[in-house]
Amino acid sequence: MAPIVSARRLAELLGGLDRVGPAYREIADRLRLLIVDGRVADGTRLPSERELAVAMDVSRTTTTRVYAELRDAGLVRSRQGAGSVVRLPLESSTASSLIVDADDADTIALTYAAPIGPPGLARAFETAAAKLPGLLSTTGYLPDGLPVLREVLAQRYTDGGLPTDPDQIVVTSGAMGAISLLARTLVSPGQRVVVEGTGYPHAHESFAAAGARLSPLPVDGSPWDTEALTSVLAGSPHRAAYLVPDFHNPTAAVMTDAERTTWARELRRHDVVPVVDESLRELNLDGVDLPPVFATYDPRAMLIGSSSKSYWGGLRVGWIRAPRDAVMPLVQARMMDDLGSSAFDQLVLSELLVEGGQTAAAGRARLRAARDHLLAELARELPDVQAPCPAGGLSLWVTLPHRMSSRLTTAAARHGLLLTPGPRFFTRPGTAGERHLRLPYNQSHETMTEAVARLRSAYEEVTGARPADTPSPSAPAKTLEMIA
Amino acid sequence: MAPIVSARRLAELLGGLDRVGPAYREIADRLRLLIVDGRVADGTRLPSERELAVAMDVSRTTTTRVYAELRDAGLVRSRQGAGSVVRLPLESSTASSLIVDADDADTIALTYAAPIGPPGLARAFETAAAKLPGLLSTTGYLPDGLPVLREVLAQRYTDGGLPTDPDQIVVTSGAMGAISLLARTLVSPGQRVVVEGTGYPHAHESFAAAGARLSPLPVDGSPWDTEALTSVLAGSPHRAAYLVPDFHNPTAAVMTDAERTTWARELRRHDVVPVVDESLRELNLDGVDLPPVFATYDPRAMLIGSSSKSYWGGLRVGWIRAPRDAVMPLVQARMMDDLGSSAFDQLVLSELLVEGGQTAAAGRARLRAARDHLLAELARELPDVQAPCPAGGLSLWVTLPHRMSSRLTTAAARHGLLLTPGPRFFTRPGTAGERHLRLPYNQSHETMTEAVARLRSAYEEVTGARPADTPSPSAPAKTLEMIA
Repeated sequence: MAPIVSARRLAELLGGLDRVGPAYREIADRLRLLIVDGRVADGTRLPSERELAVAMDVSRTTTTRVYAELRDAGLVRSRQGAGSVVRLPLESSTASSLIVDADDADTIALTYAAPIGPPGLARAFETAAAKLPGLLSTTGYLPDGLPVLREVLAQRYTDGGLPTDPDQIVVTSGAMGAISLLARTLVSPGQRVVVEGTGYPHAHESFAAAGARLSPLPVDGSPWDTEALTSVLAGSPHRAAYLVPDFHNPTAAVMTDAERTTWARELRRHDVVPVVDESLRELNLDGVDLPPVFATYDPRAMLIGSSSKSYWGGLRVGWIRAPRDAVMPLVQARMMDDLGSSAFDQLVLSELLVEGGQTAAAGRARLRAARDHLLAELARELPDVQAPCPAGGLSLWVTLPHRMSSRLTTAAARHGLLLTPGPRFFTRPGTAGERHLRLPYNQSHETMTEAVARLRSAYEEVTGARPADTPSPSAPAKTLEMIA
Repeated sequence: MAPIVSARRLAELLGGLDRVGPAYREIADRLRLLIVDGRVADGTRLPSERELAVAMDVSRTTTTRVYAELRDAGLVRSRQGAGSVVRLPLESSTASSLIVDADDADTIALTYAAPIGPPGLARAFETAAAKLPGLLSTTGYLPDGLPVLREVLAQRYTDGGLPTDPDQIVVTSGAMGAISLLARTLVSPGQRVVVEGTGYPHAHESFAAAGARLSPLPVDGSPWDTEALTSVLAGSPHRAAYLVPDFHNPTAAVMTDAERTTWARELRRHDVVPVVDESLRELNLDGVDLPPVFATYDPRAMLIGSSSKSYWGGLRVGWIRAPRDAVMPLVQARMMDDLGSSAFDQLVLSELLVEGGQTAAAGRARLRAARDHLLAELARELPDVQAPCPAGGLSLWVTLPHRMSSRLTTAAARHGLLLTPGPRFFTRPGTAGERHLRLPYNQSHETMTEAVARLRSAYEEVTGARPADTPSPSAPAKTLEMIA
């Protein structure tokens, strides 16, 4: 059955109008955003123009124009009798417009929390290139990973206090590759998976795509409310729990030792497999004390790591550290998936891991400076915005003075600044995320200064502190859903 | 409900005994092979020891030892009342033993039809490394691909007579990444997908994992029997058809222009999406005339290409060339999948594509020589085996004089030669593949000479022409299911 969104619900998602330019344009821009970022799903039946006009307190002419705009943009199809229905596929030009491209210097994308390549990374590529001939004499198919990389990774876990054999490491295509592989291998359709109420949307979507029914925890306080967990697990059987305990994405929170202990005990008691994304763990910018990796608390845990977060987004090497008896099904599932990760990227990561940590340290130093720069710019330009300093990770988790995140995102796109609206990081649909914005600090200081200037313009437009610039009608369509 | 295999069916799958060494060992080795390559699925309930003894015409003591062996190997679990049940997960040591590893010089694996790196590939890595700094200044996240690579690929299709815009290219993690992405994006659980009766098993498994019900075509004659297609499509609605028309894997057949025309017409008439794996197309070793790419016949076709086949297995870059309106859902699904392919590998492939084709030509020349060498060795050592010369692709499709492929595979493993048993390339379970063997010619001449010598020893054992060597009890467990 096709999903339906009521006029009242849609009006709530669209929020109050900023009255910048014509109302139809503002509503159309926001609805476009809701569609491309998935909050109004493909195939959803929209309310009638009349119903929406009533709910939004605008004229019928306005909503008629809104739907006509979206039809023209290929996002909505209206049929006699069937009403108006959201439709993706749409033209692909919007997709490519988001790809980082040196020519597209005008648009700034603060949608990806992945680092640019740190100083020293090019050197690791050169060292790896020198070792390439040995690898070229093989077929290069490595479904469970390059042996030397598995050894180095196992040794790191062992050195960190978790004895690990190279056979317990499965190399994947980034952390996301690890998450989707685990989702497909662990979950049968209909099984339940515990997820954080605030979290990384693509991970949750990956579990949902594997057929999981998600049980999100509450969004107040810690992402890992132990009382809520206990009550969720007592309510129905769950297959797995997905969590990001180290510099949590997006809040940057760190799970305490006590929380880890309680989670491990509860998950174990209810026979729930912990899928623990530790890919941000190495980005400990302030060198704070972190509790041990999760498998120290529960040996059944599937640990996920990634070079895309600790070194460079383009280095698509992640891994799973699994209990011995869980490895074979993962490798077998991999064969129907992508057969293995880039052989050369694996060689590069091996080099980075054995070189002694200089490149990782240089990357952290740069991120630390970038974080402090972004915080300083925000404090000066947007003092009403609360931006606590995260001890690690790749982004600020900002609190806005009002529920305005989606409106701010739409306005920012008009100024050539791409943001991910706060509600995207909230697992349950609703407006809880409208007070929040995730701002990655992975760009140059100059770019971030410009980004904050644009954010300030958008903010002033939305809060009515200044009139809107002439809106560019096509800009918001660019905000295609790509978050990292 | 757990699957069950009857004693009669299992006896059929195990085949007649070669009487090399004790019967229990021979049966145990073959059963192990059936389990690790998936023909007897995880969780299958096996017949009782008594029933199997009757069906195989061996003593009860023999089958008792068989099950005890498999229990010791961790492949079967027996429980009072519940009988004996196949269990994977098993220890992961068998998985890693198959990974190509310079130290493991004793075992030869003829299971991967992927080329080793051709002369000139190292140079492409160097050229790409010189262009790396520009890429390192971005996050390197490329969910739809590196812009320059998409442009080059689009230009190649355009030059070949199929006008293509860069926006129509989605870069994936190898051809397998393209297949699994298309399977997940196109197919809803329960929808039917037409597949070749003889074909590449991991592709079929990928569709099945996405919930597809497979409709395999007959295995006699051409893999693309048009009458059979018409009858299958008339029988029930299908969502997609997966085919490998150029140097088909494993038979090396090429789909004729007439077959392509009929397939395109029939698929279109029944609203079935063609998913066309053209990853072997560039491996036209004898420069034969190939009909145009499939989208020339049906513009709705999803075309798949890959650098892993035409250059090197370790270069994990594939792509989909899709109609415009199909691109966005692919890129969006990609975000829950692996977020993008290795940035550097994409740069390397771009270099290879613009350099003018020398590296590809060198790779083809080497494969041609390797093919001819393997054919000559087979003709000399195993004259009873029919091995037609394929005009392209990466492997011979051999016809054996008797139904013996699984037995031969088991015997070969005892001699340190890993093969994929013929039935694995047949979509319907059964013994149709027992007359066949796929032999990739991707190794050095020296290695292939040794491989054929081992194959001959195994063949003579199986046909009774000579007594068996002392069997090594652990070897066959290595034959883990990894085919490329």
